[in-house]
Amino acid sequence: MTGKMIGVGLGPGDPDLVTVKAARAIGAAKIIAYPALPGAESFARQIAAPNIGEEVREIIIEVPITTERGPAQAAYDVGAAQLAEALDAGTDVVVLCEGDPFFYGSFMYLHARLHKKYVVEVIPGITSVAAASAALAVPLVARNDILATLPAPLDSADLRTRMELTDSFAVMKLGRHLGRIRALLDDLGLADNARYIERATLPEQRILPLARAPDPAPYFSMILVTKGADPWLNPPS
Amino acid sequence: MTGKMIGVGLGPGDPDLVTVKAARAIGAAKIIAYPALPGAESFARQIAAPNIGEEVREIIIEVPITTERGPAQAAYDVGAAQLAEALDAGTDVVVLCEGDPFFYGSFMYLHARLHKKYVVEVIPGITSVAAASAALAVPLVARNDILATLPAPLDSADLRTRMELTDSFAVMKLGRHLGRIRALLDDLGLADNARYIERATLPEQRILPLARAPDPAPYFSMILVTKGADPWLNPPS
Repeated sequence: MTGKMIGVGLGPGDPDLVTVKAARAIGAAKIIAYPALPGAESFARQIAAPNIGEEVREIIIEVPITTERGPAQAAYDVGAAQLAEALDAGTDVVVLCEGDPFFYGSFMYLHARLHKKYVVEVIPGITSVAAASAALAVPLVARNDILATLPAPLDSADLRTRMELTDSFAVMKLGRHLGRIRALLDDLGLADNARYIERATLPEQRILPLARAPDPAPYFSMILVTKGADPWLNPPS
Repeated sequence: MTGKMIGVGLGPGDPDLVTVKAARAIGAAKIIAYPALPGAESFARQIAAPNIGEEVREIIIEVPITTERGPAQAAYDVGAAQLAEALDAGTDVVVLCEGDPFFYGSFMYLHARLHKKYVVEVIPGITSVAAASAALAVPLVARNDILATLPAPLDSADLRTRMELTDSFAVMKLGRHLGRIRALLDDLGLADNARYIERATLPEQRILPLARAPDPAPYFSMILVTKGADPWLNPPS
């Protein structure tokens, strides 16, 4: 019997936003695996820390910082080979994933390499979008509203079309694109509907008006836009 | 000091997919509130049950089954008045919400009525979309993919445009629209990319090929479509 790979969603950062199921899976793990930037503490490991047992083997997947795909692909190849060895030996491996494993998660790179050969289970996590909407106290979508998640690196023309065609949207991966996104929202008359948040649910969480959002923005940041105002949500009383 | 209204996301149905934070808030509650259909057990209460204390007051908001807005509005008016009374007396009220409170959640109707007068906290929950993608073992979005949630009751022409312009999407609120959505996906050549799931994470969970999905579909069902195949997720090895 080979082991099972369990992708565990950890949510946005607050360790209390881990699910009961995820906490239990982490606590029961004999082997955990997670990505880390070279020389830096793993954010995923930090979130999971209160639930990690004492005698656990840790497989660290060192992902180089580069925009090229080759070196990161190679890092996941190495990581997947280490996981495969553990799985072949019959041990389950819990893979720690910030947010939700299948929502822009690095877990997908291990999943792609291993799911045809091994049993995989995924425990969903709180997404950064749900966390941001809760922290901002902004209802996302009601009734027949459309929600979209839009990665900032996309072309401005592509983004504009989608922004026009949706009721609420989250712009992710802002980084050095923040200024361009801000100009686009201004141009669309949506600046007043936009809220900026970084490091949602962490002690360092910061909420700023769009005009004051830093450019470039940190990695864990998001702009949430709700055109809002379903009349159902604004009763006359 | 008035009390605080705490909207607690409970996730898709499996009680273990409640977060540690939500479980704690429910366990500490002196008053809980939740919507229920007349004569039926509340699904939200069922999910939260393992965490509900013994001497808790329960405010049940009976929401009539109708497509008209008036009667439901009136039910939330009555519910909000009951909550306001408890909050004015200085007691916190925990509002139980299936899924995530701000993602198509009925909590928003209480929020709209009370957030200007009372302190509100929202604890995010696992969305039905994250739960469905985990249960189906289908990665949702990676890198610069766009995700959209599309309510089935929208016009076919509107839906078609959005389906064409996004990489992955979830069609919610299928009900009696299932046949029309299926025809639309067939027409767009997306039938092979579509998966149907109902009652995700519950013991009664069912996954079916789109062609065999029931019409009408039950309330807790979804079609997930991923055009997929970011080459990054399909390494040559």
